[in-house]
Amino acid sequence: MLKDIQSQTDNRGISLNRVGIKNIDWPLKVYDRAKEFQNTVATISLSVALKHNVKGTHMSRFIEVLNNIDILNPHVILNILETIQTKLDADSSFFECSFPYFIWKKSPVSKHTSPLKIEATIMSEKRQGKNEIIIGVVVPVQTLCPCSKAISSFGAHNQRANVKILVKTKRKIWFEHLAEIAEKSASSPVYSLLKREDEKYVTEAAYNAPKFVEDVARDTALLLEKEEGLTWYKVEVESFESIHNHEAFAWVEKKL
Amino acid sequence: MLKDIQSQTDNRGISLNRVGIKNIDWPLKVYDRAKEFQNTVATISLSVALKHNVKGTHMSRFIEVLNNIDILNPHVILNILETIQTKLDADSSFFECSFPYFIWKKSPVSKHTSPLKIEATIMSEKRQGKNEIIIGVVVPVQTLCPCSKAISSFGAHNQRANVKILVKTKRKIWFEHLAEIAEKSASSPVYSLLKREDEKYVTEAAYNAPKFVEDVARDTALLLEKEEGLTWYKVEVESFESIHNHEAFAWVEKKL
Amino acid sequence: MLKDIQSQTDNRGISLNRVGIKNIDWPLKVYDRAKEFQNTVATISLSVALKHNVKGTHMSRFIEVLNNIDILNPHVILNILETIQTKLDADSSFFECSFPYFIWKKSPVSKHTSPLKIEATIMSEKRQGKNEIIIGVVVPVQTLCPCSKAISSFGAHNQRANVKILVKTKRKIWFEHLAEIAEKSASSPVYSLLKREDEKYVTEAAYNAPKFVEDVARDTALLLEKEEGLTWYKVEVESFESIHNHEAFAWVEKKL
Amino acid sequence: MLKDIQSQTDNRGISLNRVGIKNIDWPLKVYDRAKEFQNTVATISLSVALKHNVKGTHMSRFIEVLNNIDILNPHVILNILETIQTKLDADSSFFECSFPYFIWKKSPVSKHTSPLKIEATIMSEKRQGKNEIIIGVVVPVQTLCPCSKAISSFGAHNQRANVKILVKTKRKIWFEHLAEIAEKSASSPVYSLLKREDEKYVTEAAYNAPKFVEDVARDTALLLEKEEGLTWYKVEVESFESIHNHEAFAWVEKKL
Repeated sequence: MLKDIQSQTDNRGISLNRVGIKNIDWPLKVYDRAKEFQNTVATISLSVALKHNVKGTHMSRFIEVLNNIDILNPHVILNILETIQTKLDADSSFFECSFPYFIWKKSPVSKHTSPLKIEATIMSEKRQGKNEIIIGVVVPVQTLCPCSKAISSFGAHNQRANVKILVKTKRKIWFEHLAEIAEKSASSPVYSLLKREDEKYVTEAAYNAPKFVEDVARDTALLLEKEEGLTWYKVEVESFESIHNHEAFAWVEKKL
Repeated sequence: MLKDIQSQTDNRGISLNRVGIKNIDWPLKVYDRAKEFQNTVATISLSVALKHNVKGTHMSRFIEVLNNIDILNPHVILNILETIQTKLDADSSFFECSFPYFIWKKSPVSKHTSPLKIEATIMSEKRQGKNEIIIGVVVPVQTLCPCSKAISSFGAHNQRANVKILVKTKRKIWFEHLAEIAEKSASSPVYSLLKREDEKYVTEAAYNAPKFVEDVARDTALLLEKEEGLTWYKVEVESFESIHNHEAFAWVEKKL
Repeated sequence: MLKDIQSQTDNRGISLNRVGIKNIDWPLKVYDRAKEFQNTVATISLSVALKHNVKGTHMSRFIEVLNNIDILNPHVILNILETIQTKLDADSSFFECSFPYFIWKKSPVSKHTSPLKIEATIMSEKRQGKNEIIIGVVVPVQTLCPCSKAISSFGAHNQRANVKILVKTKRKIWFEHLAEIAEKSASSPVYSLLKREDEKYVTEAAYNAPKFVEDVARDTALLLEKEEGLTWYKVEVESFESIHNHEAFAWVEKKL
Repeated sequence: MLKDIQSQTDNRGISLNRVGIKNIDWPLKVYDRAKEFQNTVATISLSVALKHNVKGTHMSRFIEVLNNIDILNPHVILNILETIQTKLDADSSFFECSFPYFIWKKSPVSKHTSPLKIEATIMSEKRQGKNEIIIGVVVPVQTLCPCSKAISSFGAHNQRANVKILVKTKRKIWFEHLAEIAEKSASSPVYSLLKREDEKYVTEAAYNAPKFVEDVARDTALLLEKEEGLTWYKVEVESFESIHNHEAFAWVEKKL
């Protein structure tokens, strides 16, 4: 019989907020608004709180509960959290994963379809019998500088930017829907495939909708406030300034 | 006279928590416990809160205030924060920077000196007239698994781990001092230069001091609680498990 | 009719080795030795040589040819290369992609199955009518230092290491097979899921098979030289030294 | 007396191209065209070839030779290479380092000075009595798309791009000089600090100098071919397309 060091009593009197594993990659299915589901590869973190009088956690159990995932959804995640909380005798448990998610978009004029990768995130916590879920996306968009446009005789600097949205929600919300909110709030969406007539369209559309990172953050926030069922959001916009070697950013966070 | 778009009135009614720049690299001097100072290259973020009725921030002013830094210290940072708060008419302001910091360490037996790189962080916020500073380090150490040692007839898996410490402090605290706290709490410090007699020493010392990430987090926390002048700490330990392709981690955060 | 700037004549007299796109993420299927195939997300680069007298390449065509991939295999890749070479009137074309690939491994004693992520790479070039394919893997393993073991009274430092193998091959070769070659050449394989009896086994196995990065590189090379159908290999081993804050590495490259 | 495992005879008959250390950070001084020198933090790799009949290399000696660097220059590097080649009885030796390097630039109209970070690289090899040095820079610039400008009624998409130059040279060549070559070949340089009159200037200048990655690569190559003393160059341009979520790239390599 091998010793169980982790289960020994700890006398240091220090409980730990979280103990677990991270940066483990895992193949998964996730629901997709257009098709039934899509396959992806997620990077996962799974952890529990550790009581002050227990020496350590049995890390292998985090992997065992992951082994049962087929399609990732709130019920599966809640089940994972409840299982590890029981197995590890913990007061709270935490799941976090992020993965590339593809949205099949049509280019604006020629209507060619191609996949655009966004980053999707799901975080879930179970604490004192309550379960809370945060859903998030990081969506690449284009921003065109209103100041540069206003002061220049022609042209305006523009660049790729990321819109990061995190929401707490009481109802189902699609990654695609959050991505659309981000894209509507930017100077223009970006696409994997643009033919020449599309490129003309996108160039002119961005020029006609100049936005600072401040504007994108606020317009995204305004759209989120109109959504039903959200109880909290955070929006962060980061633009890879084409005239600088650094990023501009803006963020806003709000309880609803 | 060029238009000032940023100063226009905004009617969306949404104030932003932070607006600014990030990922700008900057050459700096920082104080060093052993010598007078050391030179480094910092990655900086600087931002302010933006009132609901103002369209945007003048980003170039963040760069202008950085231009005056010589040696980075709390007074310089407070001065930066006050200057941008005034220039940008903001209610709060934020400074964050991280940089490689070198500690010249002697190997344990042969006493050869070599520089060990840690990551250092300084965060500072000015809000409602109050200024708060957070100091941090990320220190590479070695952890040797107590379970692996206890159950195996010989050997024990061990690996590099990072100890991340963040503290709010009312008095001066050296990066070197925080690094020593991290190293004392691990199975062994790591070194850039180890001769054979040093390698023997480090190998045996780690075998004699097995630690889970949970142990390193708790022992670091215990040492921080004995420090005078701290009002808050967060400790996170992350180990690059040599028997897995993922990381184990533990963290604890506490007000004092 | 929109202008075609890219097709204009260029008078600078400079032909370009490669022009194309990179860092585009794409959902894919790849063949799997155990099951029929597995789903993954690849990062792709696609490019062509550009003649001295042509101003530019039509980048959208790289995306169009990707749109037709279902399962990635040498025929599909060759078809992609031939299509873009024709469409873009180029003398040579290049495809490169890398993706997480999962190998379902049994732990050595308890026989629990879990997925281990390796990185897989496929590079292919078509030039002067000839097509050449390079297959590669990056496999996480454990190395235990022979010097540390020999000089220490007990214990030995060990750590995670990556074995990177690239081969040119005339016959089909599975990622799983290359991964096994890497694992046999190391002190021990690594696993996502290890129960206590497995951890004892892995700890002792590594202690009984101490290897420098030099040893792992050589043993991998020896096994590759016994493989039929290879015409070239490169092996690089990199270990995340547990007693240092830097990596040790060794590589060898050979025509066969 | 501790055993010397590394010096044992190896019977596998496989010589290794390179064995050494990498990703070690080190504080350094480097020469600066404007001032005498600047301080930076370099990431270094140092290695030797390993003979077929020797088991391993003494890695600690790589660190010992680094300990003597004050200002990095070709003589210091050659001395490092010769020392490790002798100490480790090797036929060839390799040094590689990269570091942030700051160029103090004046904004085009208001003439405000601010530091722009580029990445600098030095590689050096000693083999069969010959020493070869490669100098390189990665310079951030702006590119504005000629196609987008030509087909759109107003505006043109633009973005940050990196120009990577590597050269073999028989005479001293400043990082600043290579950076100027990259900047002249782009649609516009980028700056850390731009006031409104500068932003107008940069926006209009880029609009007046539209460039594909192909153009930037060729114009950089043309300027390098006019330089005296170069025996080889490689130019790679990568642009972070503002209308896509992927990069466009072009490269050219040539012996002179």
